[in-house]
Amino acid sequence: MKQLVPNFLKKRADLTPDRVALIFEETNYTFRQLFEYSREIAGQLCSIGLKKESTAGVLLSNHKDSVMILYALQMLGVRAVILNNRLTSEELLWQLEDSEVDVLLYENAFANKITEIKKTFPRAVIEKEELFQLEVAEAFIENEFDLDDVTTIMYTSGTTGHPKGVLQTFGNHWWSATASALNIGLSDEDRWLCAVPIFHISGYSILMKSVIYGMTVVLHQTFNEKAAIEDILKYRVTTMSVVSTMLLRINERLEVNQLPGHFRCMLLGGGPAPLSLLEDCKEKGIPVYQSYGMTETASQFATLAPEYSLSKLGSAGKALFPNQIKIIGKNGEEVSNHSEGEIVVKGPNVTIGYLNRVLETSESIKNGWFHTGDIGYLDAEGFLYVLDRRSDLIISGGENIYPAEIEGVLMSHPDIADAGVIGFTDSKWGQVPGAFIVAKGNTNLSEGELIEFCTKLLAKYKVPKVFRFVEELPRNASKKLLRKNLREMVKKEHS
Amino acid sequence: MKQLVPNFLKKRADLTPDRVALIFEETNYTFRQLFEYSREIAGQLCSIGLKKESTAGVLLSNHKDSVMILYALQMLGVRAVILNNRLTSEELLWQLEDSEVDVLLYENAFANKITEIKKTFPRAVIEKEELFQLEVAEAFIENEFDLDDVTTIMYTSGTTGHPKGVLQTFGNHWWSATASALNIGLSDEDRWLCAVPIFHISGYSILMKSVIYGMTVVLHQTFNEKAAIEDILKYRVTTMSVVSTMLLRINERLEVNQLPGHFRCMLLGGGPAPLSLLEDCKEKGIPVYQSYGMTETASQFATLAPEYSLSKLGSAGKALFPNQIKIIGKNGEEVSNHSEGEIVVKGPNVTIGYLNRVLETSESIKNGWFHTGDIGYLDAEGFLYVLDRRSDLIISGGENIYPAEIEGVLMSHPDIADAGVIGFTDSKWGQVPGAFIVAKGNTNLSEGELIEFCTKLLAKYKVPKVFRFVEELPRNASKKLLRKNLREMVKKEHS
Repeated sequence: MKQLVPNFLKKRADLTPDRVALIFEETNYTFRQLFEYSREIAGQLCSIGLKKESTAGVLLSNHKDSVMILYALQMLGVRAVILNNRLTSEELLWQLEDSEVDVLLYENAFANKITEIKKTFPRAVIEKEELFQLEVAEAFIENEFDLDDVTTIMYTSGTTGHPKGVLQTFGNHWWSATASALNIGLSDEDRWLCAVPIFHISGYSILMKSVIYGMTVVLHQTFNEKAAIEDILKYRVTTMSVVSTMLLRINERLEVNQLPGHFRCMLLGGGPAPLSLLEDCKEKGIPVYQSYGMTETASQFATLAPEYSLSKLGSAGKALFPNQIKIIGKNGEEVSNHSEGEIVVKGPNVTIGYLNRVLETSESIKNGWFHTGDIGYLDAEGFLYVLDRRSDLIISGGENIYPAEIEGVLMSHPDIADAGVIGFTDSKWGQVPGAFIVAKGNTNLSEGELIEFCTKLLAKYKVPKVFRFVEELPRNASKKLLRKNLREMVKKEHS
Repeated sequence: MKQLVPNFLKKRADLTPDRVALIFEETNYTFRQLFEYSREIAGQLCSIGLKKESTAGVLLSNHKDSVMILYALQMLGVRAVILNNRLTSEELLWQLEDSEVDVLLYENAFANKITEIKKTFPRAVIEKEELFQLEVAEAFIENEFDLDDVTTIMYTSGTTGHPKGVLQTFGNHWWSATASALNIGLSDEDRWLCAVPIFHISGYSILMKSVIYGMTVVLHQTFNEKAAIEDILKYRVTTMSVVSTMLLRINERLEVNQLPGHFRCMLLGGGPAPLSLLEDCKEKGIPVYQSYGMTETASQFATLAPEYSLSKLGSAGKALFPNQIKIIGKNGEEVSNHSEGEIVVKGPNVTIGYLNRVLETSESIKNGWFHTGDIGYLDAEGFLYVLDRRSDLIISGGENIYPAEIEGVLMSHPDIADAGVIGFTDSKWGQVPGAFIVAKGNTNLSEGELIEFCTKLLAKYKVPKVFRFVEELPRNASKKLLRKNLREMVKKEHS
């Protein structure tokens, strides 16, 4: 049945107008203010022709203005293609064209990239301050949201070829927020520190929780462990989202018993933390909730409560209340406990599919089950263990890196015959990408030259930090690259 | 889009098996136990032929067995027609026939009524203990619930004619539970005292919250203020559902500062409480949340937070997050703030309609808006004031008079224990208000004194012209005043 709910921010501003919605750079914004500012921006967006079902690309960093622009777009029913700030202009252009955005909104910090983009991008490109100078037209903000309507699109690279736009509906965000509340609880004193990017689902989902819960978000432009700890104390923060490199840095700086009692949840995404770190966290009283989730599930899908963090080490816990997990074998059959297989998930926070990609969507979602491509197992009590991220995914400081994308770039180099990329263990970032290169005969490729080449085409975190020149790459009979063999080679070197 | 979620109790037992689900007569039942016992009962229900989409009538009181039977039915996908224990056998029979139940389950306390029913009721009638002796067949419990499927049916009298079966879907209960959590918060230490009947939505909705939240329910067979206060202290109860007479009795018995800090919500339904009671509650630290809801909205729809209980006296607050309220005039047009009109509501917890009543359903639900028949207004800040049920409206010389308002005034008199007001036929004015008064023990109230008292507080036309001193007022199981019965009493006198 078609499910309509009130416009999130408008309703929230009506229910708890004076509650603090956002703290940014020591300034508080109430829900009333957030709604009024966002409505004004909505009027400016209307004056450039945006309306329900338009599509807008946004290249914005963690800033109060970005939050308001995102709410303004949502309230108008404009689909926001939320762009990763770290992408190169080539990567951005590809996503803008793929999603056929009507307009690109950006902030001045990205002016260089924009200059490149403007050379070929045929649509309107508007800088934030420029937008804020525009006339405020009448804003046709929606009174109700249809939970089945798409509100945001975030790109994810997937296993092969180009990134795909993940369609996120109002319902996906709604259910994600309520499922999380049913898991970790909810209080009108909750405050969530957001030092992860709001262009990721990890950050954007905090904004959705804020309006749905009536919860204060303390927004940081970038992650800094000292500032994070200070603000946890200063603003009585109760919850924070981190990836393991962030947790590592917080843990290193934090003294025993420094964390106050009101801090109740350190939500850890982007892969499991090592035992030593979890033991340290326990000692320092950091309540770590390990979780499993992805862009396609509108953030966390499964979570492990802190009381299990050591006894179920490495587990991502159980699927949240509205969610289900199955492990399937090669023929799609459900396998028994402790048997490895592909992790498939189902729930109202799972994407309805990929933008304009009927085939990939039908391959990924079958009978309501989304095939993650990740490998894992369930133990006898139903706790999930993720063994391998989908198709060799590399997670570096919380950013997903898909080897195929980097390999594609390397292969486009005139002197490279073959290339394979895997993750190398790194004490700071968890993993960093490393490349195995087969050079064409008689060429003299240098590492420096390759770094320079990649830097032009790839976001910095995707540029390989290790290069190995080899005679040939392990490929199977159908010439499929065996990255697993590459990983084993590296593992042997270190043992 | 079709929305499937896991079987509530099965999922809950998987997530938090060892958490206490139910405390009844000093015995604890964990969610694992509740699931296992309920599954066993489901097997017994299967052995009498019940299966998905069957319909079962249940005549059960507040008891742990009733809770398990209700969960068993839900897990099988059997629709439960939940019968009011106080009905006569004639009234019960009418509902059983109207809903065409396949079987009637009852407990021995109602044997007399059942003897009568059996005389004409053609289907199976099974006593609880008898059911529990049956063979446990394989239970085909559902893995998933479709939120659009009907799971419970409760009859409501409405304004005229026979009662109608209100269809309540899994989604109605889900959204009601989550909407309430978004309003009053959620903690894994929450415990809800249920001393309202579980055959009413006020009680049944507590059971749904229990499985969805993972929350302990302390279940009482009947309401007793002494036992309620004792268990709030003993079991660290945080929330309790009451109607104003229950609150009155609790308030009278409670000493200042006796209520512990962990008690955070006294959820008040069934009409507003008088000012004097609210003032007393404030003094005694009882955090009263006045609310508005009905069987058709799967419990509370709007709620007033305690910080507004005096400044917005008599208001039921604002519609919960997923909900919307409008006030409409005679031609269906939305009226302005402070204008009286019919209260119409919309939200995912609103019924899909009445069982087998296409006409009444289409008259009640128009474009997704449910027409409550209640009269009220919204103030300038959007707070809802419920003036009265449409059927109880008294029209005197062209002036509208709402009994609840007069009752509120009468109840504030120190010597009045209870009061009910209806319209008496009057040759001059059409109708005049008349009051039924229950005086407090050993007081000597005179009519003249009451007229003087009312005249100070009410416009002259609202002052009762008739007073009747009675021992008690007719109230239903949830303590709601039955003005219809008062009218019938008067009618009999005149015929």
